[in-house]
Amino acid sequence: MYVRNNLRWSVVWRLTRRSLLVFLIYNTLICFLYGPLNVHVLDIPWQPVALLGTAVAFYIGFKSNGSYDRFWEGRQLWGSIVNTSRVWAIRVFDFVQATPDEVIPDQRDITELHRRLLYRQVAWCNALRLHLRRQTAELWDTEVAPFLPSAEAATAKGLSNPPTHLLRRQSVEMRELFQRGLLTEFRQVALMQTIQDLLNAQGGCERIKNTPFPRQFAFFSFVFVWIFAAILPLGLVEEFDSRLALGQYHVWLMVPFSVLVSWVFNVIEVVGHTSENPFENDIYDVPMTSICRSIEIDLRELLQETELPAKVVAVDDVLY
Amino acid sequence: MYVRNNLRWSVVWRLTRRSLLVFLIYNTLICFLYGPLNVHVLDIPWQPVALLGTAVAFYIGFKSNGSYDRFWEGRQLWGSIVNTSRVWAIRVFDFVQATPDEVIPDQRDITELHRRLLYRQVAWCNALRLHLRRQTAELWDTEVAPFLPSAEAATAKGLSNPPTHLLRRQSVEMRELFQRGLLTEFRQVALMQTIQDLLNAQGGCERIKNTPFPRQFAFFSFVFVWIFAAILPLGLVEEFDSRLALGQYHVWLMVPFSVLVSWVFNVIEVVGHTSENPFENDIYDVPMTSICRSIEIDLRELLQETELPAKVVAVDDVLY
Amino acid sequence: MYVRNNLRWSVVWRLTRRSLLVFLIYNTLICFLYGPLNVHVLDIPWQPVALLGTAVAFYIGFKSNGSYDRFWEGRQLWGSIVNTSRVWAIRVFDFVQATPDEVIPDQRDITELHRRLLYRQVAWCNALRLHLRRQTAELWDTEVAPFLPSAEAATAKGLSNPPTHLLRRQSVEMRELFQRGLLTEFRQVALMQTIQDLLNAQGGCERIKNTPFPRQFAFFSFVFVWIFAAILPLGLVEEFDSRLALGQYHVWLMVPFSVLVSWVFNVIEVVGHTSENPFENDIYDVPMTSICRSIEIDLRELLQETELPAKVVAVDDVLY
Amino acid sequence: MYVRNNLRWSVVWRLTRRSLLVFLIYNTLICFLYGPLNVHVLDIPWQPVALLGTAVAFYIGFKSNGSYDRFWEGRQLWGSIVNTSRVWAIRVFDFVQATPDEVIPDQRDITELHRRLLYRQVAWCNALRLHLRRQTAELWDTEVAPFLPSAEAATAKGLSNPPTHLLRRQSVEMRELFQRGLLTEFRQVALMQTIQDLLNAQGGCERIKNTPFPRQFAFFSFVFVWIFAAILPLGLVEEFDSRLALGQYHVWLMVPFSVLVSWVFNVIEVVGHTSENPFENDIYDVPMTSICRSIEIDLRELLQETELPAKVVAVDDVLY
Amino acid sequence: MYVRNNLRWSVVWRLTRRSLLVFLIYNTLICFLYGPLNVHVLDIPWQPVALLGTAVAFYIGFKSNGSYDRFWEGRQLWGSIVNTSRVWAIRVFDFVQATPDEVIPDQRDITELHRRLLYRQVAWCNALRLHLRRQTAELWDTEVAPFLPSAEAATAKGLSNPPTHLLRRQSVEMRELFQRGLLTEFRQVALMQTIQDLLNAQGGCERIKNTPFPRQFAFFSFVFVWIFAAILPLGLVEEFDSRLALGQYHVWLMVPFSVLVSWVFNVIEVVGHTSENPFENDIYDVPMTSICRSIEIDLRELLQETELPAKVVAVDDVLY
Repeated sequence: MYVRNNLRWSVVWRLTRRSLLVFLIYNTLICFLYGPLNVHVLDIPWQPVALLGTAVAFYIGFKSNGSYDRFWEGRQLWGSIVNTSRVWAIRVFDFVQATPDEVIPDQRDITELHRRLLYRQVAWCNALRLHLRRQTAELWDTEVAPFLPSAEAATAKGLSNPPTHLLRRQSVEMRELFQRGLLTEFRQVALMQTIQDLLNAQGGCERIKNTPFPRQFAFFSFVFVWIFAAILPLGLVEEFDSRLALGQYHVWLMVPFSVLVSWVFNVIEVVGHTSENPFENDIYDVPMTSICRSIEIDLRELLQETELPAKVVAVDDVLY
Repeated sequence: MYVRNNLRWSVVWRLTRRSLLVFLIYNTLICFLYGPLNVHVLDIPWQPVALLGTAVAFYIGFKSNGSYDRFWEGRQLWGSIVNTSRVWAIRVFDFVQATPDEVIPDQRDITELHRRLLYRQVAWCNALRLHLRRQTAELWDTEVAPFLPSAEAATAKGLSNPPTHLLRRQSVEMRELFQRGLLTEFRQVALMQTIQDLLNAQGGCERIKNTPFPRQFAFFSFVFVWIFAAILPLGLVEEFDSRLALGQYHVWLMVPFSVLVSWVFNVIEVVGHTSENPFENDIYDVPMTSICRSIEIDLRELLQETELPAKVVAVDDVLY
Repeated sequence: MYVRNNLRWSVVWRLTRRSLLVFLIYNTLICFLYGPLNVHVLDIPWQPVALLGTAVAFYIGFKSNGSYDRFWEGRQLWGSIVNTSRVWAIRVFDFVQATPDEVIPDQRDITELHRRLLYRQVAWCNALRLHLRRQTAELWDTEVAPFLPSAEAATAKGLSNPPTHLLRRQSVEMRELFQRGLLTEFRQVALMQTIQDLLNAQGGCERIKNTPFPRQFAFFSFVFVWIFAAILPLGLVEEFDSRLALGQYHVWLMVPFSVLVSWVFNVIEVVGHTSENPFENDIYDVPMTSICRSIEIDLRELLQETELPAKVVAVDDVLY
Repeated sequence: MYVRNNLRWSVVWRLTRRSLLVFLIYNTLICFLYGPLNVHVLDIPWQPVALLGTAVAFYIGFKSNGSYDRFWEGRQLWGSIVNTSRVWAIRVFDFVQATPDEVIPDQRDITELHRRLLYRQVAWCNALRLHLRRQTAELWDTEVAPFLPSAEAATAKGLSNPPTHLLRRQSVEMRELFQRGLLTEFRQVALMQTIQDLLNAQGGCERIKNTPFPRQFAFFSFVFVWIFAAILPLGLVEEFDSRLALGQYHVWLMVPFSVLVSWVFNVIEVVGHTSENPFENDIYDVPMTSICRSIEIDLRELLQETELPAKVVAVDDVLY
Repeated sequence: MYVRNNLRWSVVWRLTRRSLLVFLIYNTLICFLYGPLNVHVLDIPWQPVALLGTAVAFYIGFKSNGSYDRFWEGRQLWGSIVNTSRVWAIRVFDFVQATPDEVIPDQRDITELHRRLLYRQVAWCNALRLHLRRQTAELWDTEVAPFLPSAEAATAKGLSNPPTHLLRRQSVEMRELFQRGLLTEFRQVALMQTIQDLLNAQGGCERIKNTPFPRQFAFFSFVFVWIFAAILPLGLVEEFDSRLALGQYHVWLMVPFSVLVSWVFNVIEVVGHTSENPFENDIYDVPMTSICRSIEIDLRELLQETELPAKVVAVDDVLY
C-alpha cells in the first residue's frame, strides 16, 4: 500500500511513462502529417470523438468502482482477520481453563498451551499471506515455521493448502482439550465458530485471488481507452490547425493538449487496474506483511511477552 | 471463466463479428446513398444523435452494473460453498466422535463414517453444479455417483432436486449419529446450522439461475444500442461529407469511424450480457467445475488421502 | 415475471403506445406549425434542451436503479423463503422425534405430525402471496385452506394478517411438542429461530408492499421526461428545417427522430416503473405463484409423496 | 409519507414556489437588461454553462442517492422493528410458560403477564417514535402511558432516553421470570437477543436522527444549483436574442425555458432534500405513527383481543 | 462534525481560499496575456476542455462516493458501539447475578461489580477515541483513568493498544465471575459475544484509520482538477474575447466565470476530501467525543446515578 499522501512524481512517471511516450509519438506524427506534410486524409469531425469520450468515461468509471471494491473487500477481510485473531486470543485465555472438578494441570502447562494456540494463529496469518502471494516456498521457514512446533511446520508446508491445515490443527486441539476436560462442550463449539470465521476470511481472500475481475470487462476498458486515444488527435487536429495565432505552427499546440487528455483517460484506467488484484505483492497491495506483524505484536503482548518485534514501516513510501 | 489477462482477438471477433458485419454493411450503404448516389433524404442533424448516445451510455452502464453484480454474487455463493465445505469437514472430524460413556465403536468405523460424510459433501457440490447447468442426466454417473453409496446415488438422480435430497441425507445421518450416541445434541444443532448454510447457498444459486435479469431492462438495452447504431451514420454522414481533404471520397471515412463508435457501444452491451447468467456452461461462467475439484482436493487431503485428482486447468484460456 | 428472452413487440407496444401516440401527434403539430404554417414563434436554441436531456438522463438512471433494487430485494426475500422452507422441513424431520426415555408415540403419528408442520409451511407461503397481492378473499379457499386443518383455515382467513397467525400456530405447536417431550428445549429454540427468519422475510415483503418508492422521487421522474419530450421538438425543429435535401419537406424528418428520442427517454422511465412494485400481480411481478408451487413440490417430495403437482408454466411468456 | 401516486400540483407548488418566483424575477430582469435596455455587459458564452450544468447534475445525483439511502435505511429499521415485535410476541407466548416441576401459577396470571410484556413492547415503539420526533413532552401521556403500569410510565417519561429504559424493564422482568422459574436460562438468553435486536434498531434510528447528511456535502449541492441558475440566463440570452421569429421580442422566450431548466435542477436538489431526514414529522417522513399502530393491532390481535384500534389512514394524502 | 444546516461563509472561505486565490491570479494572467498583451499563443479550442471536464466530473464523483462511504462506515461503527454499550449494560445487570444455590454475596457487592463493569465500558469507549485520534498521551488521565481502578489505568496506558487491553480485562473478569459462581457458563459465552462485537467495532475503526483512501485514487482526483483548472481559461478566453458588448474589455469577463467553474470542481474535490478520514480530530470528524459522552450518560443513568455530566454541545458549529 502506497502511504505517502501525494504520490511522488517518480511513481506517476513509472506508472504511465510508456503510455505517455506512445501518446507523444503518435500525436506528433499526426501533427506532422497534418501540418508540415499537409496530409489531411484523416481529418474527421469532432462529434464522434466527443461521444466516444463520454461513453469511455462511463465505462472506465464503472471499472474503477469494481476494482476499488475488490481492494476494499480484500482490506475488510484482513480487517476481520485482525479482529478474529483478538477474539481467538481472548476466548482461548478465558475458555481453555482447568475446571475445578477435573484433574488440575499445572498452571504453567495452561500458559504454555495458550502460547501454542496463539502462536499457531500468528502462523496461520503468515501462512495465508504467503499462500496468497505465492511465497510459501521461499518464506515459510522464516515467517511461519518459528511459530509452530517443528514437525507440524514441516508437514503443513508440503500440503496444497497450508493455512487450512493449520486451522484443522486448531480444531483437533480443541477436541483434545475437550477430551482432556480443559474445555467444555459449549465453549468448544464457540471456539469452533471462531475457526469458522477464520475459514470464511481465508476463503474470501482466495476468491478474490483466484477470480480476477472478469477479463471481458477489464480488457475492453483497456481497449476503449487506446481506441479513444487513437482517434482523439484526428478529431482535434483541424480545430487547432484552424487557429491562427502561431500561424502554421499553431497545429503543434495540439500535441500537448491531446496528449494530456489521452493521459488523463489512461491514468483513470491504469489507476483502476492497480487495485484490481490486492494480493500480488506490488506497491498497491493490501499491506498484509504489516497487518500480520500487528497481529503478532497484539497477540504476544496479550501473552505478556515484553520483547516484541517492531512494527513494519514503509519503505520508499510503500507498506507491504 | 475466461482467464487470459487480455482476451484473444479471436474471442473478441467471435463475440462481436455479427454486429460488426451488420454495422459495416449498413454504414457503407448509407455512405453509398449519400455520397455517390447523392441521396440526402436522411440527412439529420447531430444533436439528437449525441443526446441519444449519452442516454444510451447511461442505460448500458446501469445494465453492466446489474449484470456484473449477478456474476459476482454467483461467485460469492460458490466461495461460500468452498468455505462451508471446509467448515463441514472440520466439524465432522471433531464433533462426530465416540464419547467415553457410550459403546465405543471401532476407530476404523469412525474414519469410514467421516469419509462418507465428506464424500457426500463433494457429491452435493457436483450435484448442485450439474443441476445449475442442467447436466444431471449426462454427467451424474461420472461426477456425482462415485462419491455416494450406490443405492443413494440412484435414488437421488431421479428426484426433481437432487442436491436438496443429498443435504436431507446428511441431516438424517446427523440424527442417526445422535441416536447412536456419536454426536451430542448441541453439536448436532451446530452441524444442522452448516447444512442450513449450504441450503442457503444452493437457494441463492437457484435464484440467480431461475430469475433472469428482468427482461424489460435487458431487452431495451439491446434495442437502444441498435437504434443508436442505426441513426449514428445519419447524423455523421454530412459532417464527413463536408470535409474536403479527399474530395468526394472523404465521405467514405465515415464508415470506419461510425462503425467504431457503434462497435464500442455494442461491445459494452454485449460484455454486460456475458455476465448476466453465470451458470450457463459458457466461457464467462463462474468456474464451477474447477471450484468443485478444489473442494474435492481439499476434503480428500483433509481425509489424509494421498492420491488426489489434479486441479482443473484452463482449456483454450477458459476455466469451466 | 416476463420470461421470454426478448420482449414481444406486442408487449412493447402495449407498454408505450399511449406515449408514442402523444409524441407523434405533438411533434407533427409542431412541424406543421413551423413548416407549412411558418409559425416560428417557438423556435428555441438547442442548448437548454441538451442540458435538460443530460440532467433528465441522470435522474431516470437514478430512479431505474432504485426500482430495480426494489424488485431484486423482493426476489431475494422470496429466495430466502424457499431456503428457509427447506430448512424448516429438514429441522422438523430430524428435530421432532420421539426420544428414547419418553413415551414413544406411534411412528405413524410422527409422520402425520411432520406432514402437518410442512403443509402449514406451504400454507404460509401461499397465504403470504395472497396477502401481498390482496387476493385473500378470492383465493384462500383453493390455495391455502387445503394445506391446513379446516378449523384453523377458517379462523386464520378472517384475521387482519393471516400469515402471521399461521406462524403463531407453528410456534404454539413447537411449545406443545416440547411439553409432550417430542422436542428438546434446545431444538425448540432452534426451530423458533427458523420461524423468526420467516417472520423477517414476511416483514420485508410487507415493507416493500406498503412503502412505495417515495412518490416525490418517482413523480418527478415522470414529469421531467414529459417536459423534456415537450421541448425537444422546439429545439430540434429548426435544425431540420435548415437542411435542404428535401426542400420544404425536410422539416418533416424531425417527426420520426424527435419521437424516437422522446420514446427512448420514456421507455427508460416506464421500464424503471415496472419493477417498482414487485408484488402487484402484473406481468413484471416476482413470480410468487411459481415459487410457492416449487416450495410445495419440494416439501411434498421430502415427505416422500409421489403425486406431486406440476410446476407452474409461463402463460403468454409470463410467469406469475 | 406522501402516498398519492402522483403528487398534487399544490404540493409541487408549495415545494418549489419560492425558487420558481426567484427564477422568474431574475430571468425577467436579465432579459429586460439584454433586450429592451440593450445592456449586453453580461453576455457570456454557453460553454462554461453547459459544463457547469453537467458537473452540477452529477453532484445532485450523488446527493439524491445518499438522501434516498437515508430514508430507506430508516424505513428498513422500522421494518425490522415490526418484525422483531412479532418475534418478541411469539417468543414471549411460548417461552414464558409454567414448567411442570415448578409451582404452577394460575393460567390467568400467565395471560396477564403476556399482556404486560406485549403492551410494553407497544409502549416502546411509541416511545421511540416520540423520542425521534421530539414529542415526548406533549404526547407521552396519550400514546405511551396507556400501555404501561402507571408508576413505570411516570418514571420513564422523565429520563433522558425513555425507550432505553423500557427495554431495560423488559430485561429486568426476564430476569425475574427466570428467578421465579417461569423462564429457563436458555430461553432467557434467547429473549435477551430479541431485546438486543430492538436496541440495535433504536440505535440505528438515533444515528440517522443525530447525524445529518454531512453538511458540507448537502450545503454545496444547494449552492451549486443556485450558482447554475444564476449563470444559466447569461449563457442563454444571446442564443435566444439572435433568433428572429418574434423580432425584438424573441429574447423574452428565454424566460420560460431558462426558468424551466433552473426549476428542474432545483427540484432534483429539493426532492433529494426531502428524504434526508426521515424522522422529522414532515410529509415525507417514514410513517412511524402508522407503523406503530400496525404493531399495536398485530400484537393485540395475537393477544386475542377483539376491540382493536383502526389503522391510521392518510390525511391529505399523507401518512404520518 | 459540522452541525449548522448551512455552512458559514467563513468556513467555505477557509476551505477554498487558497485555491480561489490561485485560480484568480492564474485566470487574470491568462486574460492579461490574451487581451491587453495580445499573446494568443495558448489559444486552444473548447472541445478538449469540455471532454476533460466531463471525465473529471465523473472521476471526482466516484471519489466523493468513496469518501462519503468511509465517513458513513465510521459513523455506523460508532453507532454500533452505542448499541453494544447498552447491550453490555443490560446483559451485565441481568446476567451477573447471585444464583440461589451459591454463596450469596452482599447485594452491595453486586451493585459495585455492575458499576465497575459499566465504567470500564465507558473507559473503553474513551480509550478507543483517544487511540484513534492519537491523544492517549495527553488525555488519558482525564478521560479514561477516572473510569478505571487506578492500577489498571496505569498499566493499560503504557501498552501499544490500550482499548484491546481493557476488553481483555472484561473477559478476564467474566471468567472470574464464572469461577465465583456469579455467572453461568452459558451467560458467560453470551457476554463474550458482546465483547467480540466490541472488538469488531474497534477493528473496523482501526481499519479505516490505518488504511487511507488508496492514494493513487485520491491523488489523481486532485491532479485532474488542477489540470482542468489550468486549461479551462485557455479554452474559454477566445470565446469571451470574440464577444463585443464591452469591446476590448469583454475578455475580462472570463475571469469570474472561469474562476467560478474551476471553483465548483475544486469544491467537489475538496468536500470529498473532508470525509475521507473521519477520525482525525478535525471539524468534519465523526463526533466521537459527543458520542462517548452520550454513552457515559446512558450507562450512568442505567446505574441510577443522578449527577450526570452534561451533553457535549457544538462549539463554533462543530461537534467533536
